[in-house]
Amino acid sequence: MTEAFTHRLRVRYSECDPQGVVFNANYVTYFDIALTELWREAIGPYADMMAAGADMVVAETRVRYLAPARFDDVLDISIVPTRLGNTAMTTGMEVRLGETLVVEGEMRHVFVDTRSGLKRPIPDDVRRGLEPYAVDLAGEASAPAP
Amino acid sequence: MTEAFTHRLRVRYSECDPQGVVFNANYVTYFDIALTELWREAIGPYADMMAAGADMVVAETRVRYLAPARFDDVLDISIVPTRLGNTAMTTGMEVRLGETLVVEGEMRHVFVDTRSGLKRPIPDDVRRGLEPYAVDLAGEASAPAP
Amino acid sequence: MTEAFTHRLRVRYSECDPQGVVFNANYVTYFDIALTELWREAIGPYADMMAAGADMVVAETRVRYLAPARFDDVLDISIVPTRLGNTAMTTGMEVRLGETLVVEGEMRHVFVDTRSGLKRPIPDDVRRGLEPYAVDLAGEASAPAP
Amino acid sequence: MTEAFTHRLRVRYSECDPQGVVFNANYVTYFDIALTELWREAIGPYADMMAAGADMVVAETRVRYLAPARFDDVLDISIVPTRLGNTAMTTGMEVRLGETLVVEGEMRHVFVDTRSGLKRPIPDDVRRGLEPYAVDLAGEASAPAP
Repeated sequence: MTEAFTHRLRVRYSECDPQGVVFNANYVTYFDIALTELWREAIGPYADMMAAGADMVVAETRVRYLAPARFDDVLDISIVPTRLGNTAMTTGMEVRLGETLVVEGEMRHVFVDTRSGLKRPIPDDVRRGLEPYAVDLAGEASAPAP
Repeated sequence: MTEAFTHRLRVRYSECDPQGVVFNANYVTYFDIALTELWREAIGPYADMMAAGADMVVAETRVRYLAPARFDDVLDISIVPTRLGNTAMTTGMEVRLGETLVVEGEMRHVFVDTRSGLKRPIPDDVRRGLEPYAVDLAGEASAPAP
Repeated sequence: MTEAFTHRLRVRYSECDPQGVVFNANYVTYFDIALTELWREAIGPYADMMAAGADMVVAETRVRYLAPARFDDVLDISIVPTRLGNTAMTTGMEVRLGETLVVEGEMRHVFVDTRSGLKRPIPDDVRRGLEPYAVDLAGEASAPAP
Repeated sequence: MTEAFTHRLRVRYSECDPQGVVFNANYVTYFDIALTELWREAIGPYADMMAAGADMVVAETRVRYLAPARFDDVLDISIVPTRLGNTAMTTGMEVRLGETLVVEGEMRHVFVDTRSGLKRPIPDDVRRGLEPYAVDLAGEASAPAP
C-alpha cells in the first residue's frame, strides 16, 4: 500500500476572485507547489536537480473542479506518481478541504537537459526517490496475460 | 464553415518564470481572458449576464503544452464552443505564436444561478450569441446512422 | 520592548521572474499574507471581523528592495503596527532571508463598514489585539510638552 | 510641455479579489506593464536592451490607492520619467478610470550590467529615448536663484 504525499497550504486572499473562491488557474499553481515539496521530501531541493543538469517541463495538465475553496481555507494537496516512464512522469493530484474533495487533477512532466533543452531520461536518484511514493508501478507491467 | 474567435495578447514579464517562459498555470488565465472577450463580441459584457442572474463556474480544464512562449511575445488565443448542452458548455482553445501552436486545451463551464448557486439552463441570449462561433453543433446529433 | 510578529513562507516558483528572483509586486502580496497571519494570532480569523461588519482597504503601500530572494528561499516577514489612528492603521514590514534584509516597506489601511463602504473607527477588539504587537504607540501622544 | 505616455489595459477577472476590486499588489504589475510599453515606443523592445547588456532592477515602489477599479474596467496608465540620474531612473505613474484617478504611484529603477549584476550608467540610447517623455528635467537644476 502506498500512502500519498500530502502538502498543506492556506488559501491566500489574492488567490480568490470576485466569486469569493480560489480562481481556477491557481489550482495548477498549487499542484506545482506540492510537487516541489514532494521533491524536497523524496529527493532533495528541486534546485539541486537543476544544478546537476536536469529540469522538468510540463507537457499536460488536467483539472476537475468539484467543490469551491475560499480565503483562509486550509487545503491538503496529495500527489501520487502514477507513471515513471523513460523520460516522462505522470502524477495524480487531489486537493481536499477536510473530507471534501475540492479538485482532482493530473500533470505530465518531461525531463530535459538544462543546457540543450532536449529530452533526457529521468535521473536515477529521482526515480529511486519517487518510487516509494508511487502507486504500484511494477503492477502495470506484471499483470499476467489472460 | 466556422471561423474561430481570436483574442490577441502580449506576454507580461510577471507571467514568465525562471525558465524564461510563460508559467504553465498562466495559460489557464489566458483561456479565461479570451472567453471574456468572446463574450463581449458575441453576447455583451460578461457583467451584464451576471446582473441578469446567471454566472458560470469552471468544471474542468485541460491543457497541452506544445511549445514555449516568452516575455513580450504576442499570442493569438482562439476559442471555439464545441458543445452547448442544457446547463454546460465546452470550449476548445488554441494559443499560437505566429504559426506555432504553443498550447492546446479545453474548458467545460456550468451555468449557475447567481443567487442560489445551483445549475441553470444556458440563457437563451447566450446560446444564440455563441452559436455562430461554434463548430457545427447540429452535425454532432444529425450524423446519419451507418 | 515590542517583539515583531513574524510569518515565515517559502518562495514559490511561480512568484519568480526571468531574472530568477521574486517579481517585485509579489512582496506586496507577501505583506498581505503576513498581515492575515498577524490577525489570526492577535485577534482571530480575518473573516470573523468581516462577518462582524468591518473590513480594511489599502490606502498606501511603499516597498524598498534591498536584496534579491529566489525560488525555494525561506523568508521571514515581520510586521509591526506603527500607528493605530481613529480609522486608519500603519504597519511597518521587513522581509529577511536569514540575516539579510531583502525588503523593507510600509502599508496604510483604512477601516470601512462592510455594508456602506464608508470609513469607520477601528473595532475595539482589533485595537486591543494589535496593541501588544505595536511599537510604543502611547509614547507618541504622551510626550511631555517642552 | 510634456505629454505623458499612456498605456490602456482592461482589468482581468483573475486580478480582482473577493471585495470585487483589483487586488492592491496588481497595480505594481500594471506599472511594470506600462513601463514595458513606454520602452517599446520610446526606445524599442525591452529585450533588445537586455541583449545589449543592460537591465533594470526595481529599487523602490510607492502606491496610493484613491478609488477602486473592477473587473472589465478599462484603465489608462500614464507614466512620466521624473528623474534620469547617472545609474537610476524615477518614474511617476497615474492610473485612471475615465476621469477618475484610481491610483498614483512612483517607481525607482537602477540600471545594472546583465553579466555582473553591478550598477551601470543609463545607456545613451535609453536616455535619449526617454527624454522627450520626461518632465522638464533640466528645469530642476536651472531654476534661477530668488
